[in-house]
Amino acid sequence: MGSLQINLTKSPKEKPARVAGFGTVFTDHLFVMDYTKAQGWHNGRIEPYDNINMDPAACCLHYGQGIFEGLKAYKTKEGKIQLFRARDNFERLNRSAEKLCIPQVDVEFMLEALEKLLEIEKDWVPTEQGTSLYIRPFIIATEPFLGVRPAEEYKLFIVLSPVGAYYPEGLKPVSIMVEKNYVRAVRGGLGEAKTMANYAASLLAQEEAKQKGFTQVLWLDGVERKYIEEVGTMNIFFKIKGEVITPPLTGTILPGITRDSVLKVLKKWQVPVKEYRISIEEVVDAYKKGWLEEVFGTGTAAVISPVGKLVYADVEMDIGDYTENSIARKLYDYLTGIQYGIVEDEFCWVKILD
Amino acid sequence: MGSLQINLTKSPKEKPARVAGFGTVFTDHLFVMDYTKAQGWHNGRIEPYDNINMDPAACCLHYGQGIFEGLKAYKTKEGKIQLFRARDNFERLNRSAEKLCIPQVDVEFMLEALEKLLEIEKDWVPTEQGTSLYIRPFIIATEPFLGVRPAEEYKLFIVLSPVGAYYPEGLKPVSIMVEKNYVRAVRGGLGEAKTMANYAASLLAQEEAKQKGFTQVLWLDGVERKYIEEVGTMNIFFKIKGEVITPPLTGTILPGITRDSVLKVLKKWQVPVKEYRISIEEVVDAYKKGWLEEVFGTGTAAVISPVGKLVYADVEMDIGDYTENSIARKLYDYLTGIQYGIVEDEFCWVKILD
Repeated sequence: MGSLQINLTKSPKEKPARVAGFGTVFTDHLFVMDYTKAQGWHNGRIEPYDNINMDPAACCLHYGQGIFEGLKAYKTKEGKIQLFRARDNFERLNRSAEKLCIPQVDVEFMLEALEKLLEIEKDWVPTEQGTSLYIRPFIIATEPFLGVRPAEEYKLFIVLSPVGAYYPEGLKPVSIMVEKNYVRAVRGGLGEAKTMANYAASLLAQEEAKQKGFTQVLWLDGVERKYIEEVGTMNIFFKIKGEVITPPLTGTILPGITRDSVLKVLKKWQVPVKEYRISIEEVVDAYKKGWLEEVFGTGTAAVISPVGKLVYADVEMDIGDYTENSIARKLYDYLTGIQYGIVEDEFCWVKILD
Repeated sequence: MGSLQINLTKSPKEKPARVAGFGTVFTDHLFVMDYTKAQGWHNGRIEPYDNINMDPAACCLHYGQGIFEGLKAYKTKEGKIQLFRARDNFERLNRSAEKLCIPQVDVEFMLEALEKLLEIEKDWVPTEQGTSLYIRPFIIATEPFLGVRPAEEYKLFIVLSPVGAYYPEGLKPVSIMVEKNYVRAVRGGLGEAKTMANYAASLLAQEEAKQKGFTQVLWLDGVERKYIEEVGTMNIFFKIKGEVITPPLTGTILPGITRDSVLKVLKKWQVPVKEYRISIEEVVDAYKKGWLEEVFGTGTAAVISPVGKLVYADVEMDIGDYTENSIARKLYDYLTGIQYGIVEDEFCWVKILD
């Protein structure tokens, strides 16, 4: 892996006066590392953020051999920068790599590289309530050839983007449509990998849902089209009669790090929680009986995304108002509390950068 | 769409003395065209083959919003250059585009641009028996942003690569393993689009099959895991008791242009042919009864790829020797005959360039 070269920019960008939106503004520097079959991963370096120069025949542009991660750095009131479960992201990157025939990376080196990059870019971590610095590590196959086989050359990048508060006016429940036609992933496919391919498969369904006024779709399983998988690009939880239920990790859904955090927090809080293949009929049935108390998505971007309305065919389910006492709100306050250094980090999820 | 700008290279490459392999050598020029929401597709131009300059946040590098096509130009004995069903490829490109929320292209303009590019690169079309110039049109989403939604900026490229004869020593039967664990595509997914994502989903299965000594895998359907879909990156045909059977286009397999050509030729030849959801058990059963006469893949690269051995779990099926009288060999000779201008083009599939 070798040492980390650093080449600082001579023309730093102007930082935006107010951070808003998601993933359109990037910081002054990025991390990049090369892979060749002969040398393995090598030449890890921090460089000025610049365009990638790539052969038009690069494998990733034709056969989608690429994976990514998403995590955030947060600034505490004291001005310290914190990472939340970053190691888990790089370990998941390696699991995604395995599914896509991409060579494994050294997690320790990646964490070190990320921390160094954040040290250089620390003034880019925004300070306003709810804002953060989004971190996007990704690996792309760059070998130029048109045969279909795993590439022998790759590049790994980390780019950073200051992002706005997901809920500038507080937790806002979203409208979700249960997707009946399109399928995101199936057993034996790539569903559990954080790979380009899964997101490509979601674009058309998301667009159609958006045109109907929904924020996201809720995906059902590809085989029986009845078991709940995930919502948009988040994992999903249901609170039914006091019990919290989420689909298990059976290979077709993303093993979300926020999902895992929520499960651990709920267990600590002694809230009954179950990983279980719940069907959409069961959800509808619970709703009709008045038992469906909460529905929420979990993910890095929004942390907790309460669902206000869930529509399945002609059944329109209006769900809770997510008051102070809702589990969704408690989880949101607790997890963001840990992330911003307001709540004690009992799980040792946070790394404070010096 | 506008007119076609042409900027010729000042330093042409040396052409390889002998053409071999697939998709590693590229010609002097490429075609490129830009898309923005405001301008639509514009600035179509022929330029020296060069690297693409792309923002690291370009959508195609994260969410796999990209599609492609593959076709070939052939040189006849008289030195004329021929295209085979090129219009069908650009029409399929538009169908793939629809599935991936990518804006439609003008097929007439694309054909014109391709012909112009081929005119410039005509000396790159190889002349040796069985060689050709592989044509790879592709569209990638280039807008730099990390939100998950269809991009608003794209680039379309056409690159050209002289390719060797697929069977330098004549038609060579391949060994195929029926894939029991991995799934390429499922109904409601992207299976019928020629998109990055489908190829990403095939890499690991193909690698594992290769390590076991097989050339390709035969994919089964994602729901019941028993119906035959396609083989590797080709469509598949079975000849059972004189009848030729191929899976129908139900959304999960690629609508191959060679597949379509084979169906039309067989009908013309009055060979009984059926598009039908055939299961792997039926194939095994036919084999055991001595009825499985031929199995062959169809695709642009190999045209016809006879299967010599097909393995499903512990059943090893040794199939025909593909003599002069086999349908596979007759189809190969007939289709390549049309492509190279030796056989009369009764279907009007060929466009001879002036």
